[in-house]
Amino acid sequence: MSGQIRAILFDVFGTVVDWRSSITRELTAFGAVHRIDADWDAVADDWRGEYQPAMDEVRSGRRDWAILDVLHRESLERVLERHGIDGFAEDELHHLTMGWHRLDPWPDVVPGLTRLATRYTLGTLSNGNTALLTDLARHGGLPFHVILGAETARAYKPLPQAYLRNVATLGLEPGQVMLVAAHNGDLAAAHEQGLRTAFVCRPTEYGPMQLTDLSPTGPWSLVRDDMSAVATALGCP
Amino acid sequence: MSGQIRAILFDVFGTVVDWRSSITRELTAFGAVHRIDADWDAVADDWRGEYQPAMDEVRSGRRDWAILDVLHRESLERVLERHGIDGFAEDELHHLTMGWHRLDPWPDVVPGLTRLATRYTLGTLSNGNTALLTDLARHGGLPFHVILGAETARAYKPLPQAYLRNVATLGLEPGQVMLVAAHNGDLAAAHEQGLRTAFVCRPTEYGPMQLTDLSPTGPWSLVRDDMSAVATALGCP
Repeated sequence: MSGQIRAILFDVFGTVVDWRSSITRELTAFGAVHRIDADWDAVADDWRGEYQPAMDEVRSGRRDWAILDVLHRESLERVLERHGIDGFAEDELHHLTMGWHRLDPWPDVVPGLTRLATRYTLGTLSNGNTALLTDLARHGGLPFHVILGAETARAYKPLPQAYLRNVATLGLEPGQVMLVAAHNGDLAAAHEQGLRTAFVCRPTEYGPMQLTDLSPTGPWSLVRDDMSAVATALGCP
Repeated sequence: MSGQIRAILFDVFGTVVDWRSSITRELTAFGAVHRIDADWDAVADDWRGEYQPAMDEVRSGRRDWAILDVLHRESLERVLERHGIDGFAEDELHHLTMGWHRLDPWPDVVPGLTRLATRYTLGTLSNGNTALLTDLARHGGLPFHVILGAETARAYKPLPQAYLRNVATLGLEPGQVMLVAAHNGDLAAAHEQGLRTAFVCRPTEYGPMQLTDLSPTGPWSLVRDDMSAVATALGCP
């Protein structure tokens, strides 16, 4: 299988980076500075809960193209208001929104990707915008060769164009590209478009009570527990 | 100056990679296999000579958007015909065209960029397409964080959008971005849009008889002889 793969693309939020711990940490620091007591885990979950509905407005064509930084900022304002937290200045809201550019990778990511980078072209395939993903790559020391995603495709996953346009940008056929993701829905959409698929389970992405994506639900090319096991399965020393 | 710079973007052909030596080598190998005797330096120069006119067709709107891989292939066929070399199969022409994905960096590039990458976001800002630039980065071990260029802007330099759209994609202002290039014309266009500029002279890019771009002709932020000197000037250890 690995002989035909030229590029490995990665879903990012949840698969590569632990957004929940990082965003909770950013919100907790914000609360400490401003002496606000809140359930910051719940605020983080609510903020992430706005993610799919916000992208649905763009996917459906009900609103014009907007990058994730813009959607994150709008949903932050809604979520803070819902939790009765308001009155913060522009620069504070901007700093919190930019927290999504400072997410830490899961511990297995750098060693696994470093091995994979010796043999394959590595890239993102994320709904994050290019600036966000570039900052995450620098922040985490992630050895991506190319930053691809919703912004380069001008389409949010799981729309087919989000996969197909990025594969075409690499000058490759779908069967030469593998998507690595912790989400069965993302893999199903990639599989439908002819990409190879690897499921890496992240059982605490949504916290200790996670109920979804605890096991593979489709005919994925690979199922492994971490990125090092993916590198081994794909023949990387 | 360096305190306000967040990202350093690089022109690629001539500035980062020595296209003439690499393309001549590819053509010479092709000639050896097919026992064709030709002035391969001249063929390489003619091929590169088609570069600006081909992009002008797109810049002017006389033809629809086309990536550089497509322009390179079309101009290769014209140049081979002009030199009386023809009758080659699709896969041969494709392999030669993909020679532009295998260009070697100048010797100072990897050490200089490795130092710069510790402190700045590094990216391409090239008229090459994303696949070409990604392959060059892998081939040469170039530590770019992000691949930007004509394809991400959907505009060929020196059109203003080629600079401004890529700066916006990084979430930055023009004054926070420096363009490094060996070509005064590229720097003039970037300067016009508010970017910082660094001239790195490549006196043999066009061979031993080069007459252009042997010295800076504008008020560039930096003028240095190689990438290591740029890194030193920008405070990188």
